[in-house]
Amino acid sequence: MSGILPLQFRVGYTEDKNKAPKKTVPASVPGNAQRDWAIAENYPDHNFGDNFKMFGWMEDVYWVYSASITKNPAKEGERIYFVSKGIDYEFELLLDGRMILHQEGMFTPVHLDITDAPGKESDSVLEIIIYPAPKSKSASKGTNNEPDESVKPAVSYGWDWHPRLIPSGLYEECYLETKPAFHIRDAEARYELSNDLSFADITLEAQLKNPDEIPGKCKLKWELFDKNGDLALQHDFGCACCGISPQGDQKAQLRFDNPELWWPNGHGEQVLYKSVFTLSDPDGNVIDFKESRIGFRRCKLVRNPGAVDKGFPMSCDLPPITMEINNRRIFCKGSNWVEPEIFTGTITKQSYEPLVKLAKEAHFNMFRAWGGCMVSKEPFFDLCDEYGIMVWREFPLACNNYKDDPKYLDTLNRESVSIIKRVRRHACLALWCGGNELFNGWSGMDDQSHALRLLNANCYEHDRQTPFLPTSPIAGMGHGCYVFRYDNEHFMSQRLAGNPDYAAGYDCLTAMTDAGKTAYTEFGNPSAADAELLKSIIPEEELFPPKAGGAWLAHHGFKAWAGSNSWLYPEVAEYYFGKPENLGELVAYTQMLQCVGYKGIFEEARRQWKKCSMALNWCYNEPWPTAAGNNLISYPAKPKPAYYAVQKSCRQQMASARVKKFDFESGENFEAELFVLNDLPEKIAPCEIKATLESAAKTYFICAWQAKETPPSEHQRSASYSVKLDEPENCLMRLKLEVSGNPEMDSEYLFICKNKNSTKKILPESLV
Amino acid sequence: MSGILPLQFRVGYTEDKNKAPKKTVPASVPGNAQRDWAIAENYPDHNFGDNFKMFGWMEDVYWVYSASITKNPAKEGERIYFVSKGIDYEFELLLDGRMILHQEGMFTPVHLDITDAPGKESDSVLEIIIYPAPKSKSASKGTNNEPDESVKPAVSYGWDWHPRLIPSGLYEECYLETKPAFHIRDAEARYELSNDLSFADITLEAQLKNPDEIPGKCKLKWELFDKNGDLALQHDFGCACCGISPQGDQKAQLRFDNPELWWPNGHGEQVLYKSVFTLSDPDGNVIDFKESRIGFRRCKLVRNPGAVDKGFPMSCDLPPITMEINNRRIFCKGSNWVEPEIFTGTITKQSYEPLVKLAKEAHFNMFRAWGGCMVSKEPFFDLCDEYGIMVWREFPLACNNYKDDPKYLDTLNRESVSIIKRVRRHACLALWCGGNELFNGWSGMDDQSHALRLLNANCYEHDRQTPFLPTSPIAGMGHGCYVFRYDNEHFMSQRLAGNPDYAAGYDCLTAMTDAGKTAYTEFGNPSAADAELLKSIIPEEELFPPKAGGAWLAHHGFKAWAGSNSWLYPEVAEYYFGKPENLGELVAYTQMLQCVGYKGIFEEARRQWKKCSMALNWCYNEPWPTAAGNNLISYPAKPKPAYYAVQKSCRQQMASARVKKFDFESGENFEAELFVLNDLPEKIAPCEIKATLESAAKTYFICAWQAKETPPSEHQRSASYSVKLDEPENCLMRLKLEVSGNPEMDSEYLFICKNKNSTKKILPESLV
Repeated sequence: MSGILPLQFRVGYTEDKNKAPKKTVPASVPGNAQRDWAIAENYPDHNFGDNFKMFGWMEDVYWVYSASITKNPAKEGERIYFVSKGIDYEFELLLDGRMILHQEGMFTPVHLDITDAPGKESDSVLEIIIYPAPKSKSASKGTNNEPDESVKPAVSYGWDWHPRLIPSGLYEECYLETKPAFHIRDAEARYELSNDLSFADITLEAQLKNPDEIPGKCKLKWELFDKNGDLALQHDFGCACCGISPQGDQKAQLRFDNPELWWPNGHGEQVLYKSVFTLSDPDGNVIDFKESRIGFRRCKLVRNPGAVDKGFPMSCDLPPITMEINNRRIFCKGSNWVEPEIFTGTITKQSYEPLVKLAKEAHFNMFRAWGGCMVSKEPFFDLCDEYGIMVWREFPLACNNYKDDPKYLDTLNRESVSIIKRVRRHACLALWCGGNELFNGWSGMDDQSHALRLLNANCYEHDRQTPFLPTSPIAGMGHGCYVFRYDNEHFMSQRLAGNPDYAAGYDCLTAMTDAGKTAYTEFGNPSAADAELLKSIIPEEELFPPKAGGAWLAHHGFKAWAGSNSWLYPEVAEYYFGKPENLGELVAYTQMLQCVGYKGIFEEARRQWKKCSMALNWCYNEPWPTAAGNNLISYPAKPKPAYYAVQKSCRQQMASARVKKFDFESGENFEAELFVLNDLPEKIAPCEIKATLESAAKTYFICAWQAKETPPSEHQRSASYSVKLDEPENCLMRLKLEVSGNPEMDSEYLFICKNKNSTKKILPESLV
Repeated sequence: MSGILPLQFRVGYTEDKNKAPKKTVPASVPGNAQRDWAIAENYPDHNFGDNFKMFGWMEDVYWVYSASITKNPAKEGERIYFVSKGIDYEFELLLDGRMILHQEGMFTPVHLDITDAPGKESDSVLEIIIYPAPKSKSASKGTNNEPDESVKPAVSYGWDWHPRLIPSGLYEECYLETKPAFHIRDAEARYELSNDLSFADITLEAQLKNPDEIPGKCKLKWELFDKNGDLALQHDFGCACCGISPQGDQKAQLRFDNPELWWPNGHGEQVLYKSVFTLSDPDGNVIDFKESRIGFRRCKLVRNPGAVDKGFPMSCDLPPITMEINNRRIFCKGSNWVEPEIFTGTITKQSYEPLVKLAKEAHFNMFRAWGGCMVSKEPFFDLCDEYGIMVWREFPLACNNYKDDPKYLDTLNRESVSIIKRVRRHACLALWCGGNELFNGWSGMDDQSHALRLLNANCYEHDRQTPFLPTSPIAGMGHGCYVFRYDNEHFMSQRLAGNPDYAAGYDCLTAMTDAGKTAYTEFGNPSAADAELLKSIIPEEELFPPKAGGAWLAHHGFKAWAGSNSWLYPEVAEYYFGKPENLGELVAYTQMLQCVGYKGIFEEARRQWKKCSMALNWCYNEPWPTAAGNNLISYPAKPKPAYYAVQKSCRQQMASARVKKFDFESGENFEAELFVLNDLPEKIAPCEIKATLESAAKTYFICAWQAKETPPSEHQRSASYSVKLDEPENCLMRLKLEVSGNPEMDSEYLFICKNKNSTKKILPESLV
């Protein structure tokens, strides 16, 4: 059987690849060279202030890892392999000074037979030379366009929520492994579910290594165990008496009747089977085995009803973006996932699990795993398999124009095939996607881009049962809104387009009600982080009032995105509540707006079902503590109040109100339409929904809507109801929907009413 | 060297594949079994009346071709091959009763070594059994959905301009060929032009057959000859003294500096080089050679300026559909090409040449070779290479939902690779496309359809330098209008969408001015055929008045498309001119409207450059004489008047007027904007354009526009000018644009002005 031999690495840097580092320090593996160096040199916390800038010089040096290998680690008849799931990014592998591998790309595993490498009679030195961070010559220096000729994730080159800090190195485990010469190189059980879900056609495929060294009549069997651990199906390869013929691929086709299905969160159980290939020698001893899990589900993208083209000249219906799992159309509720640490080497199952668990608790069923970040490590997908979170997985392309360059395409080809072959085994994988915003003006790619045609072709060849999108958004889908209120020049496109409703500025509730997209795969509402977190990253003297410099700037409070005040936007808080007088008020104002905005957008997207089929906000989590941003969860895994507001908005069955804006003036009509939202394949009984609007001064009766039975996976909409507002003072108003006999479906919303003659300050309230 | 041995075939039918035909008749090869039978049995002309219906029974029988092969046709050391470029559609090939090939698909060539087949000691019988026309079980019987599980072109199952008459059989040449055992199996020179067009990277690849039978030291050379026949570049494979090593592929990379470029019609010369691979034996005698042509051009689809998305939530910019040849953006003017004969076997270079020549004379530079028809035979592409007509080539998918079915996908995979490998050698090939209207509601396919992902992947693998569209139209592009006036219910989508401009019906000039698409890849205006042609296909007693039955119906005058009056639409002619009193009037009325409509749409599309980049009308030609339709050219190659109107509208440099509708009332304002249209990469000098409107009663002065210099490949637009119409009687009005010093840029347009008090009949005039 196999044996793992750990390696003890040290790391140092050099500016000349041919010269050894002057100094080395202990390396964490998995880990990142930059972090190892910082720890050894006592750098201050990279999360505080603008300390991350101290890492800037590390981008352009070679990092050299070295470890010694004791002589003869392999026994007679064994082989010894150098193994890693990936090394970030371009590197050379040297054994006793001789290069045995040069690879560009962090997603292609390394599995190298070094049994016969020179030096095996004495101790050897293994070195891994990591190249400087890839930067294209045509890109502006210091921008996140620099990785546009590589498959290096762009985010660490700086983003509006990620500082410029580029990790590299042995971010996955690296070790030596001893194996019997004859063993399983790779084995996989794949399946295709029948249209009616009544059976799965299973394809087994295994490759055996060193077939010439087979130790007599060996046997290879495959077993499928159900969720209780009982054997559900099995197959013996080769001949019952002679065993297997070791040459060539071992293949088999089996039919498995009535598989228990895997369902996304909220729609059923996440049933996972276990698939085991076992290779045994003539005495029946196990030589090698491969184990993985299978969740049976059928995954398609189908057309969104109502997204059709009419009239001449006629274009075409909008592309499908409704996820159909096991023949059930599912509204995708969720968020954009980013890797939870800047230092990717430190990410473990423990980094992922609280976040995935919170997603399940928020009634989410999908993560869009965004293409600016690396493809997550295996535990992420394992957890999503278990918690029922579908994963929309993007390749590492984002916001750049990745050109039709043969060298780049070679790397992308190799890396993408490695990614597909690793991730396709997971039940949670629901969608492949080329990358982020590649068809938008700032990227400039399109359907003709060779990189995207290549990715489509590779996904088709290696995993055709999973849908593929070239990018997000494609035609009909939308990214945005990203702010609560659209007042400043940057957002005047609607106003400029002549829509009079937007003439005086508008909020995200208005914009989303009018949007009519097929899927909202990014939208956001910013808020400041909690005061406690702010104090941990911003020097006390800078805390209040916030300024566009120092730690507020470094942590994306200002000049992060469009306009100089993103993501804090203090003027938006001031517009509604007046000038915040202290940090506590600022945090409370922006966090209440974030709650209102997110609640409004998530529910509005759901109200637009079935034409609209997805609501995935930007973004879920963050890899370091931002001072302000659109995230629902602060680093490392602390929910903001908006998380709980969204959690309420994502209940599978609930009452919901469409109100087209947030702020009113006394004398205006307050209009609301009510909905019963039903994401479950079960009907909701007829009910009465009473709607009242409570202000400081009074309670308005809006309606008592007699909702009929709501069919499975459908919504129901009321007429529009209206009351005239009459408020003597500026105030908050709370809209309450009460559902007869179903209080768990009740909902609440907050609005503002102003009276021109009032100077009364409005104080935020909680929506949770 | 090679020798061709023709085969003399006879053909007959049987309902049972295992029983021989009761009778056989002489077969034309190339040809179609159905036509051979009809000739032998003295069927009347299939183009007259509804005679085509007599062929209906032929769909469901097996057609059996047979020919005898004289014994020992091959000499010692030679091989003998059965060769065909394709056999339509599914067939078995039998030699002396033994099946040696079973193939589905008409585009995959047959090249079968039958040297060692049994029976070579005596005369043999070769049989080809053609299966019945493919029909899927799920499709409605008798509809053109029937081929939705096959790669059989759908058009012959019946279309709105093609009768139901399904040909099959040996539609390409079939013969025996003798070859020296050692010969060239295949050889191709491919290239990639550098971005600055200064050199071509040429890749040579040749496969040699039967390398074990190489007769000593052989040589393989490649030569490139320029347009004058002079040697421009050459390469000798293998070693100068030992010759080639025959095993494996022969490969080479060469750089060719300063190639003369191939340009589309109107943009430069169609320079074609000749590529020759020559294999010679140790004595220097030529064993075999392969010759083809190369036109050096760089072909890309680039973004249409102005086709950008703005505002939040933001979708994405529209997909690129501007053809860029040799780094020059080119407005594509042209038409939709359909195969020129129902009986595909009769198509020769002589069928194609007059049509391609007329396209060049109309200033066209592109054919969209429509996916409902078969992929044209080689002479079509040769002619387009020579005349400079770019070809947008669709795969044989049209208006159906070709499902994710493994058997269908296998056939499509094989057939599409065959098509790509054949056609990619042609300079005229500008665009691959999955097929016709597959993303529209009636087809129901989308980006996720496996057939389209497969085609994209195959095009990428085998011809990545040519752009690929999944279908036409994709987002931003438009199909339509198809009629002159939108009055009847079927076309009320614009009216229903609440656009008040369309409340009282509207014409195609109005619709196109407002359309704003990136490319108009189908649009049409119908007219009756010439009286002479009508008399040749419609019995005299049915000729006038036309009725929705008999030959008018059979020849698509009625009930062909939307509404019961397509394509004749007598009510539209009546709306403008009053009831036609005889056949001559009917023809004249509809043909004048066709001229006006086509002129208006072609020029309006050009006026929308650069956001709009293509105007390809539906359709160019027809495979049989229709009584009415949108074609510019009647069967077989006779231009309608509209052809000449379009020819004028497609001049590279011209004056053009935007007038938003065709019919006016006295008292209304007549508004016009003038344009200088310039499709050439040369500027147009400043000029004065005088616009006058001549009616029966008077001449209105519209303007004398002082146009500035018009830059290369750009247009120039005037202000809007207006005059008030004052006409005592119904009349035609002729708008004349006269360009100072440039009379070849002058243009004319026809309009109608009505006076409510007038009963005067309007008589059509010529626009040509």
